[in-house]
Amino acid sequence: MENLASAGRWERHRRIFEEYLEGLRFTEEPALERLQEAMRYSLLAGGKRVRPLLCMESARLFGAPPERVLPSAAAIELIHTYSLIHDDLPAMDNDDFRRGRPTSHKKFGEAMAILAGDAFFGEALTLITVRQEGTCEQRLGVVQELASSTGVNGMVGGQVLDMDQTGAGGSADPGMLFMIHRYKTGALIRSSARVGAILAGAGEEGLEAISRYATELGLCFQIVDDVLDAVGSSERLGKRAGGDAERGKATFVSVFGLEGARREADAACERALRALGRLEGRDTSALGELALFVRHRGS
Amino acid sequence: MENLASAGRWERHRRIFEEYLEGLRFTEEPALERLQEAMRYSLLAGGKRVRPLLCMESARLFGAPPERVLPSAAAIELIHTYSLIHDDLPAMDNDDFRRGRPTSHKKFGEAMAILAGDAFFGEALTLITVRQEGTCEQRLGVVQELASSTGVNGMVGGQVLDMDQTGAGGSADPGMLFMIHRYKTGALIRSSARVGAILAGAGEEGLEAISRYATELGLCFQIVDDVLDAVGSSERLGKRAGGDAERGKATFVSVFGLEGARREADAACERALRALGRLEGRDTSALGELALFVRHRGS
Repeated sequence: MENLASAGRWERHRRIFEEYLEGLRFTEEPALERLQEAMRYSLLAGGKRVRPLLCMESARLFGAPPERVLPSAAAIELIHTYSLIHDDLPAMDNDDFRRGRPTSHKKFGEAMAILAGDAFFGEALTLITVRQEGTCEQRLGVVQELASSTGVNGMVGGQVLDMDQTGAGGSADPGMLFMIHRYKTGALIRSSARVGAILAGAGEEGLEAISRYATELGLCFQIVDDVLDAVGSSERLGKRAGGDAERGKATFVSVFGLEGARREADAACERALRALGRLEGRDTSALGELALFVRHRGS
Repeated sequence: MENLASAGRWERHRRIFEEYLEGLRFTEEPALERLQEAMRYSLLAGGKRVRPLLCMESARLFGAPPERVLPSAAAIELIHTYSLIHDDLPAMDNDDFRRGRPTSHKKFGEAMAILAGDAFFGEALTLITVRQEGTCEQRLGVVQELASSTGVNGMVGGQVLDMDQTGAGGSADPGMLFMIHRYKTGALIRSSARVGAILAGAGEEGLEAISRYATELGLCFQIVDDVLDAVGSSERLGKRAGGDAERGKATFVSVFGLEGARREADAACERALRALGRLEGRDTSALGELALFVRHRGS
């Protein structure tokens, strides 16, 4: 996010977050070192950290020090990482590379990849229940938030929907396309912002506004991802470009065309900025610039 | 558990539990019906329900109506079911049958089996955070308990350890064997009893005693499982008998011999009964008979 005027704040969040993540250990049992290694291999592969950084900035926006929400921000990244590991499996997307490195099952074998993914969920909950500061209600609220965005009606359901229409030649109807995104990616991005807000004690109205912002940000992010996949270079993405089309996956480009997809991205970005307008009196500059950055990355 | 004198109480728990489980729905989205079907296929395959029933009886022991803990008891069974689905996968134990029916991946395909397993974790948390009665501290305590018994230092770690020594010709050292069991199966059985106690507001001493009981019960259960696998018929187990030896898996029989394993089972059963002795003034008859039933099942 080096193009942002508010880059200083994001860079600070990122530095603090990477340091926290790097310091995480899940076991002291030597016989489980290989499992821990597999987990850290995927966790520390240098992702964009959109979800945890959004969580931290949302906390800051509502008056909490971003450091305070680190355990929950990390929990979210653990859950996101588990979903990437499982999505890459041979039975799913069958990807050999992610972020320019062999995927977990290529490096550690399929069984270990499944289990490393599985282990992340329990460890995420331990971070929230043992390490996260806050009232009991806040922490239980975080668990509830992540439960709903990662189960049948969230991330996992979204992956099922995505698989179901893969191979259909990219011709899903727009309604289904939005639904897949909302379940598969949107729900957890929305939760990331909400978790920061919940832990900062945001009121109903603030929570509503930040949820709306994050929903539109997530949508914009996905559309731009599809656009970049269609036109971008493999090098820039760290994975095969054009992979979606190759698989016959419905994307915002296959459904709306390249120009149509760009217009949808613009509209989502605009709605995200409008949602921030409802947070009068708070410094939303970093979130505003993030939305613009997400819209224009890669171009 | 039809041989128990206190069968009436267990049968009542079981009837209530099965009814609750049967009534669970995870989504109303028609496009996700196949996922829900896969989840219910494995969930309603007629397991022994040791964990949820133990949770209910533990709650009753400490003065709460067993009905009150149904959401958490079900959450535990969901998590147990997810572990069975993933353990059966081709990359893991590669089992085609479970409880006399095709395993999830044989019936629904490998991708759906992975995802059905994944979905159970989020849904389990939703049951605890949304449906479970109790104070916030109690419910967060339940989440923490299950987080620790299902992550790296619990169920998932145990499966990794188990895989690591499979193919070693059944010659693990006894210390490793106990450790595998404690992580893979013991931790969640122990948690099942603790969750019921936590929700019933049991004190430190009661929690300690019931934890000890459940630890020994779980150990006894595993040893007897190994014995039955070595001598039992496929018919009775609903899966291939002798499968452990075939895979070169270390078991209590391969390490201690058949008679040695039976002695270990006796000792564990005895320690379980002794732990109940510390719960003076409470009606532990059903738990005592359960320990004896677990010890002598199949013989």
